[in-house]
Amino acid sequence: MKIRGIMAQAADQALRVGEVTLRDVQPDDVLIDILYCGVCHSDLHMARNEWGVSQYPLVPGHEIVGRVVSTGQAVSEYQPGDLVGVGVMVDACGHCHFCQQHEEQYCEAGFTPTYNGQDRYTGEMTRGGYAQNIVVDRRFVVSVPENLDPRGVAPLLCAGVTVWSPLRHFNVKSGDRVGVIGLGGLGHMAVKLASALGAEVTLFTTSPEKGADARRLGASRVVVSRDADQMAACAASLDVILDCVAAPHELDPYLAALKTNGQLVLVGIPDSPHPSPDVTPMVFRRLSISGTSIGSIKETQEMLDFCGRHNITAEIEMIRGAEVETAFARMLKSDVKYRFVIDIKGTSWVAD
Amino acid sequence: MKIRGIMAQAADQALRVGEVTLRDVQPDDVLIDILYCGVCHSDLHMARNEWGVSQYPLVPGHEIVGRVVSTGQAVSEYQPGDLVGVGVMVDACGHCHFCQQHEEQYCEAGFTPTYNGQDRYTGEMTRGGYAQNIVVDRRFVVSVPENLDPRGVAPLLCAGVTVWSPLRHFNVKSGDRVGVIGLGGLGHMAVKLASALGAEVTLFTTSPEKGADARRLGASRVVVSRDADQMAACAASLDVILDCVAAPHELDPYLAALKTNGQLVLVGIPDSPHPSPDVTPMVFRRLSISGTSIGSIKETQEMLDFCGRHNITAEIEMIRGAEVETAFARMLKSDVKYRFVIDIKGTSWVAD
Ligand SMILES: [Zn+2]
Ligand SMILES: [Zn+2]
Ligand SMILES: [Zn+2]
Ligand SMILES: [Zn+2]
Repeated sequence: MKIRGIMAQAADQALRVGEVTLRDVQPDDVLIDILYCGVCHSDLHMARNEWGVSQYPLVPGHEIVGRVVSTGQAVSEYQPGDLVGVGVMVDACGHCHFCQQHEEQYCEAGFTPTYNGQDRYTGEMTRGGYAQNIVVDRRFVVSVPENLDPRGVAPLLCAGVTVWSPLRHFNVKSGDRVGVIGLGGLGHMAVKLASALGAEVTLFTTSPEKGADARRLGASRVVVSRDADQMAACAASLDVILDCVAAPHELDPYLAALKTNGQLVLVGIPDSPHPSPDVTPMVFRRLSISGTSIGSIKETQEMLDFCGRHNITAEIEMIRGAEVETAFARMLKSDVKYRFVIDIKGTSWVAD
Repeated sequence: MKIRGIMAQAADQALRVGEVTLRDVQPDDVLIDILYCGVCHSDLHMARNEWGVSQYPLVPGHEIVGRVVSTGQAVSEYQPGDLVGVGVMVDACGHCHFCQQHEEQYCEAGFTPTYNGQDRYTGEMTRGGYAQNIVVDRRFVVSVPENLDPRGVAPLLCAGVTVWSPLRHFNVKSGDRVGVIGLGGLGHMAVKLASALGAEVTLFTTSPEKGADARRLGASRVVVSRDADQMAACAASLDVILDCVAAPHELDPYLAALKTNGQLVLVGIPDSPHPSPDVTPMVFRRLSISGTSIGSIKETQEMLDFCGRHNITAEIEMIRGAEVETAFARMLKSDVKYRFVIDIKGTSWVAD
């Protein structure tokens, strides 16, 4: 099946419309008509080959919301017309320890990324959600609550679950005190989700002007991280901090903000290492620094159901396909509140 | 009560015998006749004021085994003649969150160290176990199984519980795969205790000649950490690694040795920071780096009971009080298998 997608033909070329071939619908597959696709920072990194693994042509996009067009004969859980989502993964080995316990994101054989991964059926490169359609195994499709605005749901599929997974893994519950570093695509979802879980949320930011937004989204305290007095005032006050800033930065001020037994959770990977953390408070207050990677399909569905009940979606700016390069340029300046989402139906699919 | 102890009069003076005044026995106190005291690295650091907090005269020693001489009127759990131990703490606030849940080592008001701490009764500096006697609140005294050699018990009170606590906190159980970095005072206890818990133990060392000892103490695998091939062969094989090396060193090779969800636990504090760990494997395999500080009184008693059942004591070299400086010098060269213990009864208490 041939469709149109927005693709990079090389690291130094602007994205433009081109033709994509999708695999034939297999017995376990779902063919999806894409409505909206979020624009994740990794789309930019991959389009530009900044991680050195990109294969071209490359169609980015792993925050996908659409409706089911048709299904393979083994699919009973989805019907044509259902509102569904696809995130960062479209396949995994299915039989390793982690796949068996529904943590495919840690599949020992490596999960198949939604784009720029090797399709386990065809051996071809996978193509992402900056496109008219996608074909995905039913086990990697999630159901989207119909009461939510599907435009704001798109970013939940990567940004949302990436912060939801550590909130759940580190057992954040009502009354806990949670810190969030950075009010961007990930951070703004962390503030929304943590506060909806009943946590008291502190937002750390270098931008005092983000304070009002942070409070509107659910933060009860905003700390300007460059203000030593404000940082000192929140010493030893937090159970868990989600560090949503990928740029290299000092971790020690955040270790100081953790209570004994506290967890600093890194969800971003810096290009160069963070300054080395001081072991002293880690030992004397049994602190941990952990990493965590996206989230499982089970967690994604759990988060979407939670968002449905709490009426939570991402804060977004809508664009059309032709505006992807402009969006990338603005993202590089952190000039987005807080995620761009491509209106796939509003995009011109005439090839450039 | 005046007794004799081995003390530093200044950072640059050799330790020698001098007079120590103990507090009067309070209703909750236990007066102990010291038999043996282990020589911990922190004794050396404190005697030399290497952490800048030492007050003189300073009597080191927090790995104490002795027999009860007498008790205050509120003490019912100990009788004269009982074999008992005292570790790193002799008091704490008693009412904070951590004291209430039997984790006095994380007391919010700060626990009282066995030496060079401020006595909560008298306000005077506490004096440690390089001495004839000590007076300690019953809540900070532990019972020593009579079937164990009390000389080898002494190091359990600091080195032993410092590795026991993380083994328990991170839930090491039979069949788990545990790494131990460094075969010194802490590391050799980690090998013994982890293997007695049923774990399969891998010892990492820079000294190939320690392999035979490590196997004798319970390790099933010995990896020379400077050998890249040996390190590569144990990639992603361990659940928990106890890092018992305080000198600054690369953490990345040990992160690589952890399975997904693995824990790297630091029990030592380097003088200068370790090279900054790479966040990439932490994120992609949800690894944690944690610190942990000694252990609680409850854990100390639990460990001693466990050691009693499994007949575990430290590997030691006995010295007399006059040999403390020689012992310090050898410790600086890591020339000890694996802990010096002072024979308090075999020491001359004539003042120098
Ligand atoms: Zn993403
Ligand atoms: Zn798998
Ligand atoms: Zn010690
Ligand atoms: Zn306390």
